[in-house]
Amino acid sequence: MSEFRQDKATREWIVIATERAKRPNEFRMKRSAGNLALAHELCALCPGNEAMTPPELIAYRHGGQENGPGWWVRVVPNKYPALTPEGSIDRKMEEGFFRKMDGVGQHEVIVDSPRHDCALPLMDDWQVEEILRAYRERFLALQQDARIKLIIIFKNHGLAAGSSLLHPHSQIIATSVVPLNIRNKLYEAARYYDEHGRCVYCDMVREELRDGKRIVEEDDAFIVYHPFASRVPFETWIVPKGHEACFALISPHEAKAFARTLKSVWLKLYLALNDPDLNYVLHTRRSMHEVSESYHWHLQITPRFTTAAGFELGSGIYINTALPEETATFLRE
Amino acid sequence: MSEFRQDKATREWIVIATERAKRPNEFRMKRSAGNLALAHELCALCPGNEAMTPPELIAYRHGGQENGPGWWVRVVPNKYPALTPEGSIDRKMEEGFFRKMDGVGQHEVIVDSPRHDCALPLMDDWQVEEILRAYRERFLALQQDARIKLIIIFKNHGLAAGSSLLHPHSQIIATSVVPLNIRNKLYEAARYYDEHGRCVYCDMVREELRDGKRIVEEDDAFIVYHPFASRVPFETWIVPKGHEACFALISPHEAKAFARTLKSVWLKLYLALNDPDLNYVLHTRRSMHEVSESYHWHLQITPRFTTAAGFELGSGIYINTALPEETATFLRE
Repeated sequence: MSEFRQDKATREWIVIATERAKRPNEFRMKRSAGNLALAHELCALCPGNEAMTPPELIAYRHGGQENGPGWWVRVVPNKYPALTPEGSIDRKMEEGFFRKMDGVGQHEVIVDSPRHDCALPLMDDWQVEEILRAYRERFLALQQDARIKLIIIFKNHGLAAGSSLLHPHSQIIATSVVPLNIRNKLYEAARYYDEHGRCVYCDMVREELRDGKRIVEEDDAFIVYHPFASRVPFETWIVPKGHEACFALISPHEAKAFARTLKSVWLKLYLALNDPDLNYVLHTRRSMHEVSESYHWHLQITPRFTTAAGFELGSGIYINTALPEETATFLRE
Repeated sequence: MSEFRQDKATREWIVIATERAKRPNEFRMKRSAGNLALAHELCALCPGNEAMTPPELIAYRHGGQENGPGWWVRVVPNKYPALTPEGSIDRKMEEGFFRKMDGVGQHEVIVDSPRHDCALPLMDDWQVEEILRAYRERFLALQQDARIKLIIIFKNHGLAAGSSLLHPHSQIIATSVVPLNIRNKLYEAARYYDEHGRCVYCDMVREELRDGKRIVEEDDAFIVYHPFASRVPFETWIVPKGHEACFALISPHEAKAFARTLKSVWLKLYLALNDPDLNYVLHTRRSMHEVSESYHWHLQITPRFTTAAGFELGSGIYINTALPEETATFLRE
């Protein structure tokens, strides 16, 4: 089982993932480039190879057997999970000084499509809707576990984004600790609400709409923009116009619009920037039962043109070499 | 001039570095591998090419002219600085809503050696001592500016660590804002002191010495260990055994030991792991005049085997695939 360990000086938690552990000598630098291309026959996410993954949690299929082909979206536990459901969230002390805890959580893989090499922006609209439906269905299942304090739904696209598989997939990691930067995000949103009586994200959406120069696109339900304080070039946010803290409370109309928007903005990045490596992360309250007037769910896209170096690691301050006003204009036109 | 911009939702600061700005279309993905090898004649950090950098701030030299060859360590302003000394730290409001500020600070490059391709662990001891002497000399100069709130001394080694130059060099960025994770680090150290009446770093050093299994090496002045909550495989800390908040108060004896230790532990990593890409960051209070019983300077080495992906970006929780007890044992033996 994995374990959480707490940094004694900062009280930050990290995960030691023994399920995916390497021996120390396996870290020797390999000086040749990696290769994402992998034959279909060897791809654990391709139809026909279902036995190469743990048994499916859900699958949307037209006929066919459970754990056989015929699906268009499939969710399985990660074969090398960072966190697993067994264990206790009791904190334990090691040598009476260091704090640790069982690696309680869940780690799932959403196979976005049966097609091995079709990135999300090139998929049909209905396929993207079905991926988001799977996100929501698994989110609702995971929030049942009271030990889960945070559910992160994300995607790594490309080597520079930390992906080792070409076959399109997303991941969900549910964790039993709340890390500092999430705690801070919720705290600052609450503090803004206390000062202004309004949600800071609603206010940002209103300001972006009023000004317009950082907007990439919008419709009646969503706004897409490059935030004023973008951390990296082409950082892109998709934010619902209506106030809602939890993604799972999305309406059927909004769900369709969200799929269309996600595909559309990624396609803009794909065409303008030659399929850039990127991550996206869905930020949401952990439960649809947590009413919050101050928090507001959103999806954050982080293209990976640059590498966080010593200054970013040491200070947490990002140095962005592009103006969001210019990158938004570039994508819009 | 660069500018600081504040994230309205998290109150984090980021830097928009217009001095090094690219046009939006320059971010198109280049699908060929980069090449760090650069002929000496084209290297701005090599002796004979001093005119390719801004005029030197300091240089340790045996004869020769200012801004000519003959030096063994040379410090120059960064040609494309992220931050510059001019401007005001008054906060300004953009469109009455977003907070920003002039990019006040300093960005310097320390040329570690006249040799183009000799990494620090392969240098003579005296050369490493001279690099650290330059760190301290520039630190003392920068802390004079009351607008400077944080001085980060760091090194990026290798492409995966964000370095674009082979010639060994370090950097100093002095900033006029205090970011969240530094504020948090100081706050948690103060809180630990309040609870225990002791410095948390001193306590960690004592625990590591008592137990021994995460220690890589030690002498009378420094301990080198892989922390209990290591964020990445082979994360390595060099911590002075004596309590001191500010690096600049290092004694001549400690300075010699620090150079020997830095070289020795990096050489262990270099030999065991085939010259891994890495960053190191010197964490210290910003001024030798700030007495602190709760903070304790240290140097943190972060090898770059893995890429922070969606989960790390979204949650701030690192997933480490190696046990620090095992990696420390591996390096020790």
